[in-house]
Parts: sequence; C-alpha cells; structure tokens
Amino acid sequence: MKDYESRGFLIKQRAFIKAYLIHLIDRQKDYGWNYLEEIREVFQPYGFNPTATELYRCLHELVEDGILYRIKKRKEDSEYQEVVLYKFTDDGWQKGKLYKQQVKTDLDRSMGLLKKAVKDMYT
Amino acid sequence: MKDYESRGFLIKQRAFIKAYLIHLIDRQKDYGWNYLEEIREVFQPYGFNPTATELYRCLHELVEDGILYRIKKRKEDSEYQEVVLYKFTDDGWQKGKLYKQQVKTDLDRSMGLLKKAVKDMYT
Repeated sequence: MKDYESRGFLIKQRAFIKAYLIHLIDRQKDYGWNYLEEIREVFQPYGFNPTATELYRCLHELVEDGILYRIKKRKEDSEYQEVVLYKFTDDGWQKGKLYKQQVKTDLDRSMGLLKKAVKDMYT
Repeated sequence: MKDYESRGFLIKQRAFIKAYLIHLIDRQKDYGWNYLEEIREVFQPYGFNPTATELYRCLHELVEDGILYRIKKRKEDSEYQEVVLYKFTDDGWQKGKLYKQQVKTDLDRSMGLLKKAVKDMYT
C-alpha cells in the first residue's frame, strides 16, 4: 500500500479517504453512489471538500487492493439507469479492518505531531 | 501567502514549517544554521524528517514575505567560514506573529478534522 510512503509529515489524503470509505461501506453496505456526498457533509465543517476524482481514485484502489468489488445495479426508480455499488470481497472486510488499523496509527501520529507544534508555538 | 490555497485537507507542510521557524527565530535569534537540526530533533518522535531543501525553501519564502532578512557572519572559530543567520525585519516580528496566528487557525482545523475521523471510525 504505497500511500504510506512519505517523508513523514501528516497522513496522506488518499489513505485517510480510503479508511473512511471502508468505515462507510461497513456501516451502510449498498450506498456506494452517495459516499462523496456523505464525506463532504461530514467534513464540510472542517473545510475539507474532496473532489469526485479523488474519491473515485480511492474506490478504485480499494478494488485493486482486493478489499472491495463493484456491482452494477438498476436504479430503483428507473428502467434504464444503473448505479455502481461497492461491497466487501470475501476477505475484504478483514483486509479493510487491517487497513483501518494501519491508518489509525498514522492518524494518532499526525495528531501527536500537530499537538506538539501547538504546544511549542502557542504556550 | 499562497500556501493557504488548498482543497482543504490538512495543513500544508510549507506553512507548518514556516510558522515553526518564526517560533524558533523568535526564541533563539542567531541560530539560523541549526534550525534543521532542531526541527528534526523535535519532530523525530513523530516520524517527521523534513529535507534541507524544504527548510531552505521555507526560509527563502519568509525572506520574500518580508518577515526575515539574511546576514552573513564569520564563524566564531574560523577565519574564512561564513554562516548565514536570519533575523526579523523591522516589522517582521509583527508580521510573523500574524502569520503564526493564521497557521494556528489551520492547525486547529486540521486537529478537528483528524479527531472527527477517529471518533467516527474507531468508536
């Protein structure tokens, strides 16, 4: 998972969104098509507004990592329109849990770094 | 100060280091030549190890922003070797204080974003 290779400043956006997607998919199952909306709603108060392109890159990588697979489904109120849903592969839930744990380590490290800076600079 | 233009994920490394340099220069005055060492020592426990190139870019921008100026000084124990020191310009301390306050807002926002993610994903 190459998004962990960094010079060690804060956690990368890619890893952050991938872990959050795993969390959403674990909770909501079928709602693949409105993840962007949900992520934007959750993080809008913090000024974070990821692009659709970035989100689809993250979903694509989670498929490549063998954590998710895509299924196409006809939209409930439409005969022709399709939506793409994302579900965990057979061992995807387990792999996803592991990924989330790795991200937790990096989140904790990032928060520690920011806290240290605030303590040094503003007290 | 263009390092504030972002799609709003976490605070940028450039702004973070610039604010920390202002803090160090405010405390230590003359020690321009060992800032990299100090920053690395402080943040090494958090896995952050900025490059010399990045640090010099930050110092350069602080000079361009009119916050610092450079002076060359002969090294104490050497007749020929020079060191480059950084000091606040006449209104640099005031400008630097303002910059640090802007960065504080972004540090708080970034910590809030990370905390929200941890709360959602791991509790």
